[in-house]
Amino acid sequence: MRLVTHRTPSGTRPGAVLSTAHGDRLVDLGDVAAGVFALITDDERMRAARARCASAVVEDLPALVPGDLEAPIVPGKMLCLGYNYRGHTPDGVDPTADDPEYPDVFVKTPNTFAGPNDAVVIPEGARDVDYEGELAVVIRTRARNVSIEDAMSHVAGFTILNDVSDRAWQRRQSQWALGKCSDGFAPIGPWIVTTDDAPDPQDVLVEVVRDGEVTVSQSTSTTIFSVAFVISHISQVLTLEPGDIISTGTPQKLAEAQAGHRPLAPGDAVTVRISGIGDLTTTFIAAPSESPAAPSLPEGTA
Amino acid sequence: MRLVTHRTPSGTRPGAVLSTAHGDRLVDLGDVAAGVFALITDDERMRAARARCASAVVEDLPALVPGDLEAPIVPGKMLCLGYNYRGHTPDGVDPTADDPEYPDVFVKTPNTFAGPNDAVVIPEGARDVDYEGELAVVIRTRARNVSIEDAMSHVAGFTILNDVSDRAWQRRQSQWALGKCSDGFAPIGPWIVTTDDAPDPQDVLVEVVRDGEVTVSQSTSTTIFSVAFVISHISQVLTLEPGDIISTGTPQKLAEAQAGHRPLAPGDAVTVRISGIGDLTTTFIAAPSESPAAPSLPEGTA
Repeated sequence: MRLVTHRTPSGTRPGAVLSTAHGDRLVDLGDVAAGVFALITDDERMRAARARCASAVVEDLPALVPGDLEAPIVPGKMLCLGYNYRGHTPDGVDPTADDPEYPDVFVKTPNTFAGPNDAVVIPEGARDVDYEGELAVVIRTRARNVSIEDAMSHVAGFTILNDVSDRAWQRRQSQWALGKCSDGFAPIGPWIVTTDDAPDPQDVLVEVVRDGEVTVSQSTSTTIFSVAFVISHISQVLTLEPGDIISTGTPQKLAEAQAGHRPLAPGDAVTVRISGIGDLTTTFIAAPSESPAAPSLPEGTA
Repeated sequence: MRLVTHRTPSGTRPGAVLSTAHGDRLVDLGDVAAGVFALITDDERMRAARARCASAVVEDLPALVPGDLEAPIVPGKMLCLGYNYRGHTPDGVDPTADDPEYPDVFVKTPNTFAGPNDAVVIPEGARDVDYEGELAVVIRTRARNVSIEDAMSHVAGFTILNDVSDRAWQRRQSQWALGKCSDGFAPIGPWIVTTDDAPDPQDVLVEVVRDGEVTVSQSTSTTIFSVAFVISHISQVLTLEPGDIISTGTPQKLAEAQAGHRPLAPGDAVTVRISGIGDLTTTFIAAPSESPAAPSLPEGTA
């Protein structure tokens, strides 16, 4: 299933999206569970949701209104990977030669979480805002000290994250928090594709389209650390809880896109497209003028 | 006031601690607010709480039971500083010569949050767990793009954090998340000292006592970045919300303690003592044997 959180006059409700000859249709699941979290963490409700979709009469279903979608789930915590895709190596060169021993893990804070229809505000002080299109994993059951073999049994499904990043802030400290954690810098969605309907997460194509140009196009088959490895690895150190999101890192931009790097500016639109998962399009806007003007960045201690 | 969250047979309740000739006494504030968060974010309730404390008849108050205290507040997010204390410099050497331009900010995740009576479990895979005694700031009102001059008006008060860290994990990646975010690695408390009763945060002595020996002893007057600067600085990048915690970094250990560094082991006890704020004592224990044994750390991708 493709699980969504959709806005209704009576509040947000969980739902499932069915592909039909007449386009995407919405199966409301508000009477099955209070929300997507309650759905993915309760096998009984998931069975009821699947039955509902299986017995749905397509003609009776409303068309999906993409503009009504909110973040499919609000994670308790979001852990992201740095470098996780191998670059191109010439024939005869071992592509694994530069693999690090462990993934580089960082955190995005709750103020970054946003939905598929939320525009990202470019903060006043930001000078080099960039996108990162990533396959994100949603945890279904608590995971602590799990093996690589058992890891995938803890996964509810997959969604898409644009790990929006301010490169200028990232460069200013050893730790990336200020470059990764501006408000709304983690749009996710549009839905969670449950594992039973999802492609092999090690064989999907991650692409980014910026203003009509494909700037990223690389398969997860080129990742250094598999989803199963990353879940097992992180679970050696901390407890992953239902609803947590782990994002698997971004591929390098294509050479031309790297050469022509432009910071994101108000009016830009970025689409992250992952085969078998979906598309997540994010627009970028200027900080609203009614917000207090940013004082010049403090340069010294008081 | 010193605001606490205390356990009662009917659940946790907010309270205030009064110093008396007969020791610390507890003023229950459960009928003033549902919790400390509701108290510090509502001036009306704070006034009522202060009036309650002012009119309390000490003889009628129960003695504070330190073992009943939980984390005074559960933050929405916790942002911590890396290097923020200057080291000793010989006469004639500018102590600010090595100051970085910006503080190094990182995140501790919700699974790390713990109370003053929670023992910290040393994870099976941990090899070099260490303590960091820090003055922590609790945000009272939303802060976005605030000036250094206005920053302190957004502060509810101060508490103590032991920023427990696994140095081995910290050394394995550029980002510190796995070294900082094991379950329970952020004990805070025992209380929040509200700003009206707190000392100047730039003039308190931060000490750590490990197994009876003072291993850290340095004043916040030697910090590179003041509390006001850090709040203003972070607020240029993201929105600080009521209840958020910003921790101000740890002083270096004293030379002998550095020379004699021993990873924390089950049975160790560490007290962080901050003048005018209080003491936070944390004990360290082994992972319970009923927890699943950690598989050997995965060394490669599946």
